Amino acid sequence: MRDVFIVGCGMTRFGRLEGDLLDLLEQAAVSAIADAGIEDKIESVFVANMGAGILNHLSGIGSALVDRLSLYPATAEVIENGPASGGSAVKVACFAIASGLVDVALVVGGEKMRDVTGWEATDFVATLTHPQAEYIYGVTLPALAAMFARLYMERYGVSHEHLAMVAIKNHENALKNPYAHVQQRITMDGILHRPEAIMNNPPVAEPLRLYDCCPVSDGAAALVLVSEKVARKIRRSAIRIAGIGQATDTHAVHEREDPTELRAVRLAAGKAFAMAGLKPADIDVAELHDAFTILEIAQSEEVGFFERGRGHIALERGETSLGGRLPINPSGGLKARGHPVGATGVAQLVELTWQLRGEAEDRQVNGARVGFSCNFGGFGNNVVCFVVCKE
Amino acid sequence: MRDVFIVGCGMTRFGRLEGDLLDLLEQAAVSAIADAGIEDKIESVFVANMGAGILNHLSGIGSALVDRLSLYPATAEVIENGPASGGSAVKVACFAIASGLVDVALVVGGEKMRDVTGWEATDFVATLTHPQAEYIYGVTLPALAAMFARLYMERYGVSHEHLAMVAIKNHENALKNPYAHVQQRITMDGILHRPEAIMNNPPVAEPLRLYDCCPVSDGAAALVLVSEKVARKIRRSAIRIAGIGQATDTHAVHEREDPTELRAVRLAAGKAFAMAGLKPADIDVAELHDAFTILEIAQSEEVGFFERGRGHIALERGETSLGGRLPINPSGGLKARGHPVGATGVAQLVELTWQLRGEAEDRQVNGARVGFSCNFGGFGNNVVCFVVCKE
Repeated sequence: MRDVFIVGCGMTRFGRLEGDLLDLLEQAAVSAIADAGIEDKIESVFVANMGAGILNHLSGIGSALVDRLSLYPATAEVIENGPASGGSAVKVACFAIASGLVDVALVVGGEKMRDVTGWEATDFVATLTHPQAEYIYGVTLPALAAMFARLYMERYGVSHEHLAMVAIKNHENALKNPYAHVQQRITMDGILHRPEAIMNNPPVAEPLRLYDCCPVSDGAAALVLVSEKVARKIRRSAIRIAGIGQATDTHAVHEREDPTELRAVRLAAGKAFAMAGLKPADIDVAELHDAFTILEIAQSEEVGFFERGRGHIALERGETSLGGRLPINPSGGLKARGHPVGATGVAQLVELTWQLRGEAEDRQVNGARVGFSCNFGGFGNNVVCFVVCKE
Repeated sequence: MRDVFIVGCGMTRFGRLEGDLLDLLEQAAVSAIADAGIEDKIESVFVANMGAGILNHLSGIGSALVDRLSLYPATAEVIENGPASGGSAVKVACFAIASGLVDVALVVGGEKMRDVTGWEATDFVATLTHPQAEYIYGVTLPALAAMFARLYMERYGVSHEHLAMVAIKNHENALKNPYAHVQQRITMDGILHRPEAIMNNPPVAEPLRLYDCCPVSDGAAALVLVSEKVARKIRRSAIRIAGIGQATDTHAVHEREDPTELRAVRLAAGKAFAMAGLKPADIDVAELHDAFTILEIAQSEEVGFFERGRGHIALERGETSLGGRLPINPSGGLKARGHPVGATGVAQLVELTWQLRGEAEDRQVNGARVGFSCNFGGFGNNVVCFVVCKE
């Protein structure tokens, strides 16, 4: 295949935003195009989105975005893979460029979720669960994550404090990220130990509390991807997409032999590392899919950064904090940067691009040259991972 | 790029069907996999669908289909491009194989539309119109097609009879297609001339009557696409995807300089022919997107089969009928085979595969070696065309 390079990136701030879905997609796209600063025509647009139909009563938003940006006759489609829609759209754009049929592609992921109530948003995300085996019984993503967390905590000695450490670290990182939804310092006492902590941090689905769950966010993120031929024309260091891995697992979580095992994460990461010819120890900075705090810990093990059951120990030791051996979620992650579902997989790569270019300001991981992302679809039933390298 | 071959195809009957969306996708996929008869593992699944969210309150149906078929860890995503979702999904699968990263891909397009009322289905399709410039004013696809037809008829001397000829021809073809939704012979007298014709064929949006509009259908269609390496292993003649073309146009129809011009159709067809190194005169059989009868006439000109304003003359002379010089829509087209939106672009290629293999039974176009399809998204704002060749 032909190599694929990221030459432009941009995003909206995540949060409760003004404007409609197309406004957000447009804003992120314009930033990425300006950032790329290339004169080559965009030939293909791939929009990552999960909820335009259910949340916004829209379809065909790929064509609509081409119209907003006056990019016709550029091709366009929407790619949907639940919360891993962003990763999937980047993968498809890589296929387009790798095939030799496309030289310049724009990937834009976005979601407008705050137009509906919190309950509607939770129900919307639950539409990705198994219709007959899960959804019909009222299962939601927080509920699945809670059952997963309970088992994981019991088996590996992960405590409520460990979960809170993920939240505290990622909130701290988000304070250094002007694009992050949540800009709030939290402390162990404030969310767990003090008598009033239970008021600040009520249970959502035990053992998960409010601060263990990502917020419901609006937002969009975009990347300009190009072939080597185009990448050579720009002065700034291009970021190469060195590894792509994706894998699926059973739709219903209870059908997995060991429900604490995230097989699709392990397989997807393994494929991405194999394609890149690199190993977990080569990674300088990672963006993992911490929709729930437990998931950052579990993923940090499944992708191979730490041994099974040791992720929370590495976390406790500060190895995954900024300044640590392997900073995870310097952006604030889904937990604090926010999680507009279609945008997330794209935003992870926007953050890694900034990190590898040395443009991450106060949250910069010094000397980062190799980055890793894990975008988690379903409850681990469709996962997309990337390894990106500074050239 | 590496060549891409169709080695398996299958579909459900189109119509008002039992079962849910996943049942239909599964049924079409199983037929296509059985038809391919290969032992190579399916690595990637691409699902074409427009309405899972709005019509069926589902998301992540790509992962769900992998689960239904026990194909994990195969990758999966949903591709949405309005009524051209099928064409887009096939294109993306071609990118995957052409890139060298995938050898065997499954494309399944499907829609379950009959669970909702006719009005809800019409509103659902209208979600692809411009939200601020069209949808908000109550524009529907039949309304847009009616305005287009009115202008086209005036400018080129197309009569109500010409529109009816498309319907009569395609209903006739569908009688020879066991997969077609509509199995009903219609006559000029019965739908236009007799006093009671207006009762049989009431106006939907003048000048378009009931028999000028495609039905609302459930259904699914599937293809197995492979690299040359895999295609060489099968005994039966493989069908090569020789040309792929796609183009977009303005979102709002009224922004087009000449609203009777389908620029995206012309550009998409031109690209597909250029890539294939062929011209319109080389085509033996075509599947066009006759969601409304006028569109078959207009597309037959825009793609280059006939000169501007001469499509209805060729139709009148029987050139596009079975046995004519260039049979169009031997399957019955959207008009009579039916139009489960996500399935249509895939079903067009299923029909062409059957035609080029000589397996189209009573509707076989004798000696067909080169086929063409036009899948029309939005109201002509995102169009995908293919040229396929018997090897």
